[in-house]
Amino acid sequence: MASTKLNYRNDTLMLGFSDLKRLRSERPLVLTGGRGIRVFDERGRDYIEAVSSFYCVALGYSDEELIEAAIAQMRALPIYPSAIDRTVPAVMELAEKLAALSPMPQTHVTFATTGSEANDHLIKFIWYANGFSGEPRRRKIISRWSSYHGSTIQLTALGGGSDLHRSFAVPTDECLYVSHPNWPGGAEPGESESAYGDRLAAELRSVIEQAGPETVAAFFAEPVSVSAGMYVPPAGYFTKMKAVLDTYGILLVADEVVTGFGRTGQFWGTQTLDIKPDCMTSSKALSSAYQPISAILMSGDFYDRLERGSTEKGWFAHGGTYHAHPVAAAVALKTIEIYERRNLVAHVRAIMPAWARGLAALKDHPLVAETRCFGLLGAVQLKQPGDGGAVPASLRIGGLPAQVYQAGLEAGIIVRPLANCLVLSPPLIITTAEIDELFERLTRALDQVLKDMPAE
Amino acid sequence: MASTKLNYRNDTLMLGFSDLKRLRSERPLVLTGGRGIRVFDERGRDYIEAVSSFYCVALGYSDEELIEAAIAQMRALPIYPSAIDRTVPAVMELAEKLAALSPMPQTHVTFATTGSEANDHLIKFIWYANGFSGEPRRRKIISRWSSYHGSTIQLTALGGGSDLHRSFAVPTDECLYVSHPNWPGGAEPGESESAYGDRLAAELRSVIEQAGPETVAAFFAEPVSVSAGMYVPPAGYFTKMKAVLDTYGILLVADEVVTGFGRTGQFWGTQTLDIKPDCMTSSKALSSAYQPISAILMSGDFYDRLERGSTEKGWFAHGGTYHAHPVAAAVALKTIEIYERRNLVAHVRAIMPAWARGLAALKDHPLVAETRCFGLLGAVQLKQPGDGGAVPASLRIGGLPAQVYQAGLEAGIIVRPLANCLVLSPPLIITTAEIDELFERLTRALDQVLKDMPAE
Repeated sequence: MASTKLNYRNDTLMLGFSDLKRLRSERPLVLTGGRGIRVFDERGRDYIEAVSSFYCVALGYSDEELIEAAIAQMRALPIYPSAIDRTVPAVMELAEKLAALSPMPQTHVTFATTGSEANDHLIKFIWYANGFSGEPRRRKIISRWSSYHGSTIQLTALGGGSDLHRSFAVPTDECLYVSHPNWPGGAEPGESESAYGDRLAAELRSVIEQAGPETVAAFFAEPVSVSAGMYVPPAGYFTKMKAVLDTYGILLVADEVVTGFGRTGQFWGTQTLDIKPDCMTSSKALSSAYQPISAILMSGDFYDRLERGSTEKGWFAHGGTYHAHPVAAAVALKTIEIYERRNLVAHVRAIMPAWARGLAALKDHPLVAETRCFGLLGAVQLKQPGDGGAVPASLRIGGLPAQVYQAGLEAGIIVRPLANCLVLSPPLIITTAEIDELFERLTRALDQVLKDMPAE
Repeated sequence: MASTKLNYRNDTLMLGFSDLKRLRSERPLVLTGGRGIRVFDERGRDYIEAVSSFYCVALGYSDEELIEAAIAQMRALPIYPSAIDRTVPAVMELAEKLAALSPMPQTHVTFATTGSEANDHLIKFIWYANGFSGEPRRRKIISRWSSYHGSTIQLTALGGGSDLHRSFAVPTDECLYVSHPNWPGGAEPGESESAYGDRLAAELRSVIEQAGPETVAAFFAEPVSVSAGMYVPPAGYFTKMKAVLDTYGILLVADEVVTGFGRTGQFWGTQTLDIKPDCMTSSKALSSAYQPISAILMSGDFYDRLERGSTEKGWFAHGGTYHAHPVAAAVALKTIEIYERRNLVAHVRAIMPAWARGLAALKDHPLVAETRCFGLLGAVQLKQPGDGGAVPASLRIGGLPAQVYQAGLEAGIIVRPLANCLVLSPPLIITTAEIDELFERLTRALDQVLKDMPAE
């Protein structure tokens, strides 16, 4: 481990998702160790990572088997890019493994380095496939408002955040947006779950018709969008959406970057949510984040269209140095082997009741408006200023989640403040005893913020 | 190391830069080991990696110190994303180290995962900075025809390949292109080096004027573009280009993904080519490619504008799970320490004469039209069908580099065929004896192709 310079402020390092002005003068939280679901800072304080670091460290912060897999590959061949008809055994095996696990027929697999690259590249592939199969006008990509698909320019546009679109001034003219599903919060008063789902499908149809169906290429959706605040779709949502897409020959892409590998209580989020995708993307838990790697899974039908282009041009002119890094591929192979050997999906299903109970118990807290639970995911929606109750109207909107985040650090827990929620997504290896401890710490943080709350 | 399945064809794995149809039926070259400048395939055959795998494996394929650095970080904390005011010591130290090495004043550093991400994100940052400093119309990015800056949608558009633009149907309406510098090949008959440079600068001025200077944000250029075929600019090129850019307040971005860390005979390509950039991107040799990591280096003036936006919005809403992966940061720190301790730049300068001699000696080969040399880079331009001499007019254009590539595999050398060239960029640790061996194997490959050449 690199040595720690305690006098370090932060004059040179720009950290993402941070206030750059504050970063100049305040030392960031410096993490130096990990064990199981916990990380340790430079002063030796421990934190339960209740978000598993952006929903990715499924096997926790000290899995020796993953480290050994990385070492073995590094000692054999620490780097060789997979491209130009050259590859390494771990990459071949990982492709075969993912194809075997895929819910799609005749799956073909290719790799990139990050979830962002996987989604960005897949859009490129879709345009390529459409161009070489006589549908060059099919270009527009649909996503849901509030969704997140990655950080490249194209994905900042595809993600459904108009504030982000404006801040980074990304071109959105080939993106279309529909409502984010949120059952029951998004339904009209008195609207049934089924009627709500029908309304969302009707909106999709209307957006497609208005854009011109012959100009629409694909619909990108996370099975459950954690980054949107962990809102759950109404039952039958994806079946209804898929029926609309099929009418117009529009592809359904499942962004499984967050939801894959047991997070929702089944191996893929597509299984839990009954989605029939044409393509899928995967990352994060794919390697338990010990190494950067992402995968693009394509149905046989889709892949055939890429091959047609490749045959016409003589090759498929796309690749990247760090796509399918051998060390990352070896770690991902071992990660999947561990998921299967330790039966992590069964473990998740076994602890889901304890998880749901812990979340539900928070509902009575004076600062909590509601809680949401799905698989081993959770969201704690905090009261808004003006909601009445303990939160004074004078409090700055958005200020409360940040306060709870800070109080959480004091209580030894890391949560993710997003809009007016705290999002939770612990390592999949968490035990019921650890779940209790997690909610105990979170409650302590909420209590502290309540105690410090200024009077109206 | 993962085991090798010898009966594997390739029914599921899609490899980049490959013929997808051929991939279905032919087993790729499967690499299983490495030592120094050599890699080994599954049958135990060795190959000199004359391109250091996409110009990145600067320290060769078996550097134990880099592996030990990775192991130490994995054992301490195998993953923690640097974002939301949290980071790890290795990332802080790497940022400080790069800022200290940077040729720009008051450099700020942030990280991404790949060279593609670094360039893509930097364009986002430029739009953000312009938007928050009252110049939202400054959006267009200039690059050079034949250049390569990465594989995202935005960078496929920015890269100067109209065939790629068409194949992937990427939007290019905010990209501008100027000629690629190529001295002396690109000059008019009788044109002096200085006059050629003036002409390229005049072209830049004309492209800017035509686009509307108030709509142009930045000029992206590799100091020497290896992917374009390793063409060298005329003396004074960047000074002349920079003078034009300065007239219009347009940023100069040096894409140092390939050229950093000694490749050109000095630490940065910007030093060798006398470039004064406003921002730089780096990857590949940054970690000797043992781990995926890239860096964005920004001058203080540019960074101040990002901070202005962050202050207005409350944060800088951009980040990524695998940006600045701790293991990658630890490996990059060690890589730079090795460059300095072993004085790799001095080593490169010491072997450059042997490298130049080896390339020059190829000029007399009947299949070679010309050779180019710069630092520890090289290009062997092959004769075109119709050039006369040994290459019959009936040979498919582009076929000769592919033939030499295949013959190279037989002779135990991996080169990179690009357009009508073979591009060379060996590990920086190569010795003069190994340089001799490299050219001996390449000559053997050329001889074999010549021997097999059909008569006219």
